[in-house]
Amino acid sequence: MLSKDPLECVPSRFFPREKVVLDTSLFVNPDVRTSLGRNPTEALETFLFMAAQIHILEFYMPPSTFQELLNFIEKERITGDMLLFLRQKPPKKHELKCPAFLLYELIEDMRDRVNRGLRVAESAVRSTEKKKIDEVIQDMRKKYREALREGIIDSKEDVDLLLLAMELDALLVTADQGLIKWAEKLGIRWLIPEKFGEYLAGAVKRSQELAQS
Amino acid sequence: MLSKDPLECVPSRFFPREKVVLDTSLFVNPDVRTSLGRNPTEALETFLFMAAQIHILEFYMPPSTFQELLNFIEKERITGDMLLFLRQKPPKKHELKCPAFLLYELIEDMRDRVNRGLRVAESAVRSTEKKKIDEVIQDMRKKYREALREGIIDSKEDVDLLLLAMELDALLVTADQGLIKWAEKLGIRWLIPEKFGEYLAGAVKRSQELAQS
Repeated sequence: MLSKDPLECVPSRFFPREKVVLDTSLFVNPDVRTSLGRNPTEALETFLFMAAQIHILEFYMPPSTFQELLNFIEKERITGDMLLFLRQKPPKKHELKCPAFLLYELIEDMRDRVNRGLRVAESAVRSTEKKKIDEVIQDMRKKYREALREGIIDSKEDVDLLLLAMELDALLVTADQGLIKWAEKLGIRWLIPEKFGEYLAGAVKRSQELAQS
Repeated sequence: MLSKDPLECVPSRFFPREKVVLDTSLFVNPDVRTSLGRNPTEALETFLFMAAQIHILEFYMPPSTFQELLNFIEKERITGDMLLFLRQKPPKKHELKCPAFLLYELIEDMRDRVNRGLRVAESAVRSTEKKKIDEVIQDMRKKYREALREGIIDSKEDVDLLLLAMELDALLVTADQGLIKWAEKLGIRWLIPEKFGEYLAGAVKRSQELAQS
């Protein structure tokens, strides 16, 4: 009798492992993290617990992103599993190439942001008629940074994540909309971040099925 | 007897033509333009007069840069020679690739500029204690744009020039320091812009020599 599932007969050790690149935001962003834990440390622990049972996926994180993550977790509660199941790898930034039309998009983005920043500054200058200068500056800094960061890749960590996903032909999992926008441009697969918990649960289940086959 | 010049015996029609990509700044920037003419129109006329005598070079300009140039010249004084000796070609932006590490540099540049812009805005807000608001805003706009443009590629025209030079493996001639900085990063040959007049004169002479050989 033929098996219903064509993979049922493949021992798990021969199953091609899909690569997954993870962003800090999955463990830190409260909207996304909830399915994994009440705080970043718990979320990471849950992830590692599940990752240890998953034989069909390989999880990666660029060292720069990993450093970021360390700022949010209680380091002493995380065991060596983290280093085993969450592979740290920087992208080969001097070998990779990216499509040149992206330069146009980056520069267009940049011009937009520069103009937005100027508008924030102008309205701050005008508001000095009604508010104290220190207050205005405080407020302006916040708005300026918001205006200039929104929906954009703006850090080394962001570029590391995109390039690593590109290099490994991996699935990118992030809660950062700017990164998702750029994953779209670069043809990088990405996962709806709220579904990360379910995705892991599915991978655990599938790994168990394969182990029994 | 052997010729001293190995190229002397090559008829000019077989001489491999070197490609040269030109920027508007050569005709517009007064520091650079002087060797060619008293104003942009004169500088362009001089260039075209010389280009018509040069058989060893091919001159290119992206259409976007060409449009920019048209804003600075008296169009009725420029003849069809312009279209003949200054080839207009956009880069193949969807085929070209650029090294991925440039993304890091662009983003680093961007962050620097964003911070510089914020400092300009802060000092503008503080100066409202001593100056009129409209004056402050006027002044801030100028400083802000300066702070954010300095030494950087920040327009579609800039990217067009760089990519076209890359695609054609051409010599880039520009008076824009931001572009020269990026030509260095991308391995694009560039000419000291002040030497452009001499370079053309040299090419005219060489073309005549080859025509006589």
